[in-house]
Amino acid sequence: MKETGKISKAVIKRLPRYRRYLEDLMKKDVDRISSNELSNLIGYTASQIRQDLNNFGGFGQQGYGYNVKALHAEISKILGLDRDYKMIIVGCGNLGQALANYTHYYKAGFIVCGMFDINPRLVGLSINDIEVMDYSALDEYLEQNQIDIGIICTNKGSAQEVADKLVMGKVKGIWNFAAVDLEVGEEVALENVHLSDSLQSLAYNINHKED
Amino acid sequence: MKETGKISKAVIKRLPRYRRYLEDLMKKDVDRISSNELSNLIGYTASQIRQDLNNFGGFGQQGYGYNVKALHAEISKILGLDRDYKMIIVGCGNLGQALANYTHYYKAGFIVCGMFDINPRLVGLSINDIEVMDYSALDEYLEQNQIDIGIICTNKGSAQEVADKLVMGKVKGIWNFAAVDLEVGEEVALENVHLSDSLQSLAYNINHKED
Repeated sequence: MKETGKISKAVIKRLPRYRRYLEDLMKKDVDRISSNELSNLIGYTASQIRQDLNNFGGFGQQGYGYNVKALHAEISKILGLDRDYKMIIVGCGNLGQALANYTHYYKAGFIVCGMFDINPRLVGLSINDIEVMDYSALDEYLEQNQIDIGIICTNKGSAQEVADKLVMGKVKGIWNFAAVDLEVGEEVALENVHLSDSLQSLAYNINHKED
Repeated sequence: MKETGKISKAVIKRLPRYRRYLEDLMKKDVDRISSNELSNLIGYTASQIRQDLNNFGGFGQQGYGYNVKALHAEISKILGLDRDYKMIIVGCGNLGQALANYTHYYKAGFIVCGMFDINPRLVGLSINDIEVMDYSALDEYLEQNQIDIGIICTNKGSAQEVADKLVMGKVKGIWNFAAVDLEVGEEVALENVHLSDSLQSLAYNINHKED
């Protein structure tokens, strides 16, 4: 594992958000922005913004602010968005299909190369020009293709088995949507989207805003 | 806003995860579990588990451990899962449809009552027995029905307008899937699922595991 220096996980988690706002500014042809203006937009304090962005060298200049385009490019690079990622989706129900169609990602270099399901009614279908293959072909596919990211959209009962196959097939990261915590070992990056956890947090917050 | 005592946001964020493991234990007919055993399962330290669960009164007994069923019920109650939530979905593309079909949530008392879209090809369709209504009918629907949660699955350009309508229509919480940070005021709970942020975090982590 590469040394990440002093960059904390919390800062990394905030980078996509910075990048999103910078992208909007670029679309509005804004060339530069001060930490105070960024603060008004994003909602972090100006001092936190300066501290966060100082982690990556001095993008900001006193009295000038940040160069929007340069900062966007640098954050993209730090996040690893200056390269492409080959992805496969395992589990092609509604969620798997939704992710396949989420064309937004293609623009950012996340390319779905294959989809797999166990359901014969789905196998052979073409989703966003990607053929759904039989799950039994997954091992061989991974042997023959170097895939960066495996996306798990199966039910929770199947998710660990799928993860094991993905790890064996040498993916570098797993994006997991199944409501279960997976074991993937140290070598593979794991990012979970636990929709039910998120919905339950919302329920809690609703009840604690009521009188 | 109700006083939440000393319960930190971080603890609340961990509760759905505790609940998930406790549910699995219940399915395996496990009656009680020690903080050490829970620690092995969940991956938090036993001391953190004891500290977290102490926030809600003493569920654990020295030498006995936690009563799985009682702890599950209490966490469910704290999260507000002992009641039902009426939900609507705005934006019925693949993701909206995926969420409508995510029947898992129904079991937990999250009930989709209506779906809305602006696309005439979707309006009138029935998804999981819920009719997709025209977006122009949203205001009136919200006037006539007390909806707890509005789910936003539109593109980012439309999301704030939808959020404004939902707030005006007196929803208590918004579950936002659009890649934008919404303004909803103090009264409404907001939970974001920013898929692109999550994918970018994964990209970062992949690049920092490589040699």
